Amino acid sequence: MTILAAAQHTGTTEILPSLQARLDYRKGTAASTAGVANGFVQGNLAILPEKYASAFHRFCQLNPKPCPIIGMSDVGDPHIPALGADLDIRTDIPRYRVWRDGEVVEEPTDIIKHWRDDLVAFVLGCSFSFEEALMDEGLKMRHIEQKVRVPMYRTNIACSASGPFAGPMVVSMRPFKPAEAIRAVQITSRYPAVHGAPVHLGHPHLIGIKDIGKPDYGDPVTIEADEIPVFWACGVTPQSVINAAKVPFAITHSPGLMLVTDLKNRNMAVI
Amino acid sequence: MTILAAAQHTGTTEILPSLQARLDYRKGTAASTAGVANGFVQGNLAILPEKYASAFHRFCQLNPKPCPIIGMSDVGDPHIPALGADLDIRTDIPRYRVWRDGEVVEEPTDIIKHWRDDLVAFVLGCSFSFEEALMDEGLKMRHIEQKVRVPMYRTNIACSASGPFAGPMVVSMRPFKPAEAIRAVQITSRYPAVHGAPVHLGHPHLIGIKDIGKPDYGDPVTIEADEIPVFWACGVTPQSVINAAKVPFAITHSPGLMLVTDLKNRNMAVI
Repeated sequence: MTILAAAQHTGTTEILPSLQARLDYRKGTAASTAGVANGFVQGNLAILPEKYASAFHRFCQLNPKPCPIIGMSDVGDPHIPALGADLDIRTDIPRYRVWRDGEVVEEPTDIIKHWRDDLVAFVLGCSFSFEEALMDEGLKMRHIEQKVRVPMYRTNIACSASGPFAGPMVVSMRPFKPAEAIRAVQITSRYPAVHGAPVHLGHPHLIGIKDIGKPDYGDPVTIEADEIPVFWACGVTPQSVINAAKVPFAITHSPGLMLVTDLKNRNMAVI
Repeated sequence: MTILAAAQHTGTTEILPSLQARLDYRKGTAASTAGVANGFVQGNLAILPEKYASAFHRFCQLNPKPCPIIGMSDVGDPHIPALGADLDIRTDIPRYRVWRDGEVVEEPTDIIKHWRDDLVAFVLGCSFSFEEALMDEGLKMRHIEQKVRVPMYRTNIACSASGPFAGPMVVSMRPFKPAEAIRAVQITSRYPAVHGAPVHLGHPHLIGIKDIGKPDYGDPVTIEADEIPVFWACGVTPQSVINAAKVPFAITHSPGLMLVTDLKNRNMAVI
């Protein structure tokens, strides 16, 4: 589909901000997608050879909180029309990670040369969507206020295993006053496709977090004395699991540089 | 309406367990209604002279979490047909408290001799309903396991005042593991007419509770190291407020001896 056809597909002659973002990334722009095309769903990417795709698909089905599937490609097809007009998964993400045997071997801005007829792309919901819902209700994201990445932690919560895919759940943490934490549970419960309700709150050590000030990924944030840490399942989990599975070949997005889709965050609410 | 007519009103010749309970209490039985007529909504009672009723009604509107109105009478009418066939608010509660100038002066098993043409009865939702919803989902109530009354605490959360009615919110506490606490928020959010979602969790001192082991009403319960205390607005709040307002005359139920209605707990869910 041409760009113009894609614009017409949306019912206007204007290009959606989400499509515009993908076109920029297609040309080679490589920057964080945080704050890009507000209101549109962003997604985590995991691409695997067909040989591993069904086990990974089942892993996602078994672990819907860290791995909520919002779209996937046909085998060998780099397009996912359900997620966006003119979307090409090989070029439309700002930066990729190419994995071989569990190690990142390259971080290119497109994966044209790596694409194969046996690859399957999975797009998983991302916390940007529920953060927008929380902020729309007046809750503040500490990591955004402090201009850092959200703190993420490996936990002792075991994901349900599928084939080579297994390992602990990774969670992201946002501190809130208790009444805000209750409101945050209510709001994010409406969004199961983007991690949904928290998996834990209150006592970090109960889920194996030894030092809340030392996240395994991202940056630490301040937790005030009248706040409690609230933990959501995190889209870093599949990358952690792909790393541990040491599959011969996989491709993911580079953390924070997500796929911008044409879906609207508000449409992800189930009630 | 006669009892038989009431039974026919329900569409059967059987008497509903809720009506049977009210008939027992009408005869003078005075015992806790905990566990009576399972599945049926029980309510807190507050009866006030018309002169104070509109200010109290507004107090309830302003403070729906501690004071969710599920039914009220017309002025001087002791029947509330919306809450039960053949329901007579003067006789159908096991035990009443008669208040004068903020003090309990009598605890009779009926209020026939106290009834006046200017009285208005308010029935407010009660935690028994949401406890049933929680237990139906497998969550355990510690105070039920320990065979004591639920612990309740005066907080530093100020209710919104209306006329003479003002004061702090009273809360009830149930301990849960963090993942259960999140589930409890989700479940009770469906039941706004029976106190709804918790108002606080985690740090008791943040809402003015100095010693969690010393409740202001009810009994203490064990909180395990891997649990957090979860606090719901409590139907004791209106009694506390009526006490503080020192209105010349009021009638309430005796704590734990509630009005058993013909409403079903499951029908109180909004989604």
